[in-house]
Amino acid sequence: MSRIDGRKNDAIRPVKITRDFTKNADGSVLIEMGETKVICTAAIEDRVPHFLKNSGKGWITAEYGMLPGSTQTRKVRESSRGKVDGRTQEIQRLIGRALRSIVDLGAVGERTIWIDCDVIQADGGTRTASITGAFVALVDAFYKLKEKGQIEKLPIKSMVSAISVGIVEGEHMLDLCYQEDSNAKVDMNIIMTDKKQFVEVQGTGEEAPYSYEDLMEMLRLGEIGNQELIRHQKEALGTIADEIGL
Amino acid sequence: MSRIDGRKNDAIRPVKITRDFTKNADGSVLIEMGETKVICTAAIEDRVPHFLKNSGKGWITAEYGMLPGSTQTRKVRESSRGKVDGRTQEIQRLIGRALRSIVDLGAVGERTIWIDCDVIQADGGTRTASITGAFVALVDAFYKLKEKGQIEKLPIKSMVSAISVGIVEGEHMLDLCYQEDSNAKVDMNIIMTDKKQFVEVQGTGEEAPYSYEDLMEMLRLGEIGNQELIRHQKEALGTIADEIGL
Amino acid sequence: MSRIDGRKNDAIRPVKITRDFTKNADGSVLIEMGETKVICTAAIEDRVPHFLKNSGKGWITAEYGMLPGSTQTRKVRESSRGKVDGRTQEIQRLIGRALRSIVDLGAVGERTIWIDCDVIQADGGTRTASITGAFVALVDAFYKLKEKGQIEKLPIKSMVSAISVGIVEGEHMLDLCYQEDSNAKVDMNIIMTDKKQFVEVQGTGEEAPYSYEDLMEMLRLGEIGNQELIRHQKEALGTIADEIGL
Amino acid sequence: MSRIDGRKNDAIRPVKITRDFTKNADGSVLIEMGETKVICTAAIEDRVPHFLKNSGKGWITAEYGMLPGSTQTRKVRESSRGKVDGRTQEIQRLIGRALRSIVDLGAVGERTIWIDCDVIQADGGTRTASITGAFVALVDAFYKLKEKGQIEKLPIKSMVSAISVGIVEGEHMLDLCYQEDSNAKVDMNIIMTDKKQFVEVQGTGEEAPYSYEDLMEMLRLGEIGNQELIRHQKEALGTIADEIGL
Amino acid sequence: MSRIDGRKNDAIRPVKITRDFTKNADGSVLIEMGETKVICTAAIEDRVPHFLKNSGKGWITAEYGMLPGSTQTRKVRESSRGKVDGRTQEIQRLIGRALRSIVDLGAVGERTIWIDCDVIQADGGTRTASITGAFVALVDAFYKLKEKGQIEKLPIKSMVSAISVGIVEGEHMLDLCYQEDSNAKVDMNIIMTDKKQFVEVQGTGEEAPYSYEDLMEMLRLGEIGNQELIRHQKEALGTIADEIGL
Amino acid sequence: MSRIDGRKNDAIRPVKITRDFTKNADGSVLIEMGETKVICTAAIEDRVPHFLKNSGKGWITAEYGMLPGSTQTRKVRESSRGKVDGRTQEIQRLIGRALRSIVDLGAVGERTIWIDCDVIQADGGTRTASITGAFVALVDAFYKLKEKGQIEKLPIKSMVSAISVGIVEGEHMLDLCYQEDSNAKVDMNIIMTDKKQFVEVQGTGEEAPYSYEDLMEMLRLGEIGNQELIRHQKEALGTIADEIGL
Repeated sequence: MSRIDGRKNDAIRPVKITRDFTKNADGSVLIEMGETKVICTAAIEDRVPHFLKNSGKGWITAEYGMLPGSTQTRKVRESSRGKVDGRTQEIQRLIGRALRSIVDLGAVGERTIWIDCDVIQADGGTRTASITGAFVALVDAFYKLKEKGQIEKLPIKSMVSAISVGIVEGEHMLDLCYQEDSNAKVDMNIIMTDKKQFVEVQGTGEEAPYSYEDLMEMLRLGEIGNQELIRHQKEALGTIADEIGL
Repeated sequence: MSRIDGRKNDAIRPVKITRDFTKNADGSVLIEMGETKVICTAAIEDRVPHFLKNSGKGWITAEYGMLPGSTQTRKVRESSRGKVDGRTQEIQRLIGRALRSIVDLGAVGERTIWIDCDVIQADGGTRTASITGAFVALVDAFYKLKEKGQIEKLPIKSMVSAISVGIVEGEHMLDLCYQEDSNAKVDMNIIMTDKKQFVEVQGTGEEAPYSYEDLMEMLRLGEIGNQELIRHQKEALGTIADEIGL
Repeated sequence: MSRIDGRKNDAIRPVKITRDFTKNADGSVLIEMGETKVICTAAIEDRVPHFLKNSGKGWITAEYGMLPGSTQTRKVRESSRGKVDGRTQEIQRLIGRALRSIVDLGAVGERTIWIDCDVIQADGGTRTASITGAFVALVDAFYKLKEKGQIEKLPIKSMVSAISVGIVEGEHMLDLCYQEDSNAKVDMNIIMTDKKQFVEVQGTGEEAPYSYEDLMEMLRLGEIGNQELIRHQKEALGTIADEIGL
Repeated sequence: MSRIDGRKNDAIRPVKITRDFTKNADGSVLIEMGETKVICTAAIEDRVPHFLKNSGKGWITAEYGMLPGSTQTRKVRESSRGKVDGRTQEIQRLIGRALRSIVDLGAVGERTIWIDCDVIQADGGTRTASITGAFVALVDAFYKLKEKGQIEKLPIKSMVSAISVGIVEGEHMLDLCYQEDSNAKVDMNIIMTDKKQFVEVQGTGEEAPYSYEDLMEMLRLGEIGNQELIRHQKEALGTIADEIGL
Repeated sequence: MSRIDGRKNDAIRPVKITRDFTKNADGSVLIEMGETKVICTAAIEDRVPHFLKNSGKGWITAEYGMLPGSTQTRKVRESSRGKVDGRTQEIQRLIGRALRSIVDLGAVGERTIWIDCDVIQADGGTRTASITGAFVALVDAFYKLKEKGQIEKLPIKSMVSAISVGIVEGEHMLDLCYQEDSNAKVDMNIIMTDKKQFVEVQGTGEEAPYSYEDLMEMLRLGEIGNQELIRHQKEALGTIADEIGL
Repeated sequence: MSRIDGRKNDAIRPVKITRDFTKNADGSVLIEMGETKVICTAAIEDRVPHFLKNSGKGWITAEYGMLPGSTQTRKVRESSRGKVDGRTQEIQRLIGRALRSIVDLGAVGERTIWIDCDVIQADGGTRTASITGAFVALVDAFYKLKEKGQIEKLPIKSMVSAISVGIVEGEHMLDLCYQEDSNAKVDMNIIMTDKKQFVEVQGTGEEAPYSYEDLMEMLRLGEIGNQELIRHQKEALGTIADEIGL
């Protein structure tokens, strides 16, 4: 079986990371993975949530949305429905956790970094693309803080990226597009650091359980994909990546 | 007094209209007016609101949003607040009315066209840019219907565009950017057809009333701006504009 | 064509302004314009919204509602639906803007004046009647402040009133009743001061665009109507009007 | 101890019932009990809630609100808060139950009667005044149905009215005004028919329990008050009261 | 007519009060009245609502819920519906009032006692069982405060319990189960102290009014039931009851 | 390092599964894992969500809640806050997915099984206990359907259970209690079938990433725990387990 776009099972889609995509946020990245396109911005606010007041520590929180026109059938706007649905909440929490895990929050100072990931075109893998793009926006926002002299060095412990893996018609595939994802029996998101460590592993047997061997193979693919993504992140960050020792 | 960007008082900012900006919606336009950037999509749904069932008529409805990262200070996401604020509702209603007024709804059939205008970068005039861009997305969506043979001709009676005018430090200015808008004593939005007729006029003395003469001068500027915008719309639509007799 | 109630096209309906309609609010006015009846109250609160704290300035905010029994088909109560609809929000914002534009907020002190306009019987023109009536309630509330010695003089720069105009079956008409409003092709609300200046102009081609000449004729009618209303406001205010130099 | 307004402990305040207070609802009553003023309207809708579909039976439902300007300190508008508070819900349910208990719902047909009680001036006893006034509005709405030939006779089994009783500084008092109510140790609402039967008794020891003897005395006062109110309702209804055998 | 479970009309169902049912709350009681089972917990918080700040007084507030699986037809979860319905609010307010009326709030200190009554199995009389059980949980919570030395003695003025009474097929019955309640023409809840005083009496003629004699008979049954319940509460509290002089 | 309760790192807490814990739901289970106690009920409804109408297939949906008194600091009731928080939504979706993955939905018929998991005492691992208990309640509900002759055999493809694993102070531990969970650097939930297949794996490095070796060790512990739980489920189900070939 060959994939819809002719890719090999262990290949990710073409990746394009555009920094400074918009001008008002502290970091602003357009990430494209194949036809999936997400705007990731980072905005710094000089205060922290209630539970961190006077702790000297910072916080990172993430929000995620899909533009109504991003999907083939128009997606109802969550603000109009008056609430954020469960899937969105799950994704928001996932992005936030992923970024917090690789940042030294104690070195951020009492600031909140708001990460916003807004999908303008959806073709599968929007949550993983969001994490990968948001990392770059986050670095840019921290870099701006450093340039203003508000922090001494970027409080980043590792790079982080994320990719999806799945089992479609019996085959283990990396970086599923929407059509593949719709047919996947098992769907897994793997978030890793540049040191090949796991930040989060979430694997769901949507329609059927999966075996230990399946799990091992998916972990292998996930590592390949994340290594590739981290290469793209470094390339996009250019000299900043060197400067901060990534 | 010269304007921030050196423009004359009766000049609009550089306009750029990109069609097919994203691939999933039936019409998808990125409109840029200076630094203001709005994604306008149009999506066709094969049903109508309750009050039009079995009427044979169609409907156009619009929603508007600003990405959190589109503004200098991060804008709180309306879905997270759980409600759409008054300003957003006003703008949504304005866009919907403007587009309905130039469409022959009876010729649309029992369909709803959902217009979504999402600001990705804000620098004043987002509601008027939304209308101008949404018109182009709407034409594209209708054109797609026609190509599928679902309608015979585009149900469009006129072109429509919109521009802001205002009085800033005593001077009447066309197409205010954010900084000008913040200092404007009077703020007016003028929506016009290509036949120089008015679709909507809204002029507010934010801090002080304005005279009859002020009103006349603002109407004059509005006509200049809208004529210019309609030229840009025609150019963007290319052969379609001719084909449908715009 | 003659109008439903035999009025001339440039005539407003019979106006009645009853002050002190209820006893608990600081200002309380019943305004009747033909069969449209609105209770307008003004209540003074000794604090201001967050954005004005320590500014020394005051604020005016307005809320609007229709009693369920005010319309021919019972209007669903907004508190039961759990949200205020777009039309209500637009009207609330309009009333607030109109009153703020003619008040010297710096002379109000750090106080909020809450204006409440509640329609008890609706027959068209409820938003304009609200503004006209609310102005009188506002004067009464300020007068009470002055009598208590909390302000030295009434912080009112101009009088303000509002009237609707429209084009019904090709004729330009002043002060539309509900049935006329339902058939109007163009609907305009004009808010003016006693100095014949504009506070707000909102003209919408509900079903079709309108010409420059239409606009000029509607502005002419609007001025006639507002001059008449200001005469009624002065009469209702009696000696207070003189005393404060209106 | 004498009462604030010099009334005897077993006297109600002056009652005034104005029918046809507004013109759009099917029944519209202004009830005044002393300084408490409530607009009660009844609107007939030709459908029933889900649980009564195809039952042949009708329904009566009530909503209650206080205008923001009705109280000495402005009452926050429930529609703005986005929810109806517990007190309002309790009162709405109470009014609905009271009216349903004296109507032959089987003879109403599949119709819902919406009762709306809106307090325009509050001075204690608004819920009981609402019930007493709503009964008259309900009769008027049914009478309109009968005149249109949609029902043969008014489906009313009894008249119903309501009054408050309480214990203030050790004395048992009838029909408490706001100031008395604020000081009451025990507060009771008694809803009765013209046959001196109980529709609802609700007696709360706000700050302290009360004895069996207290309860007996309050029931005695409640009967006096309700008999008086029913006399006022009959007077207001005039010939209709006779015609329907009340 | 004999009752469903063979009880006499003046008999309550078997009562079982289990203290320390769960371990985390300050007081935790499972009350069973026949097949009705409610978990009542009391939690102490070291702050008071806004209106009591710096008053030195404490507060008691109650919340009530039914597990979805507690009823024969699954009850929709109120958190999923996004709001608490009117019946729940009424019950919450009733429980709170009942407990506050027998506590010396001035002796509680600036603390809030949160009472939570969660029905795990419903068979009629859940609100009255909640009050009876919550009293015991409240005593346990206060006892814990005393043991910690934060109060000197339990601030309880009386014991309180509650029971339902009704008229079913013409007979006056005590402590209705669900099936009896469904058929009751009159439904009354009676909350009393151990001194045979009334805290609250609520009697509703659901379908028909009731006579003075009916009311007297229901009050008699209510006293019997409450006396019995107070005996059970004392037994459950054991030595604590003596110690605090109940 | 030894664990708080002296357990070995690869030992689960004492498990107790009580069937028929309440009488109204179709399945009702109390599951206790150490001090964590959850009531799991299953209720059958004879209709399916919109997207399954006329598909012949059934659906399983789950809701989860914590009683306010279940935690050491009282948990705010979600119905009172008016919305379900992100954590709850995540858990609800997890439980639903887990149960759907092991049921043959096509054999359920057009029915929805509502699973409700309500935590009455929380000490860590409430989501995994919910899944383990809910499976038993689900079997009981299906068994009831079969006894009524509405299905021929239980549509269950595998058994399913869930357990938490984590890394606490450098040690890999099975079935974390609350205190251990609070200190865990990595937290993983593993849902497995009786055939040792994975239904879901979710492992999060809360504060730091984890290595491949860590992941392998946690998977090993998860299998031990789930095997043990499945033994308890079988024991609880008794002859039913045999009868349905589990």
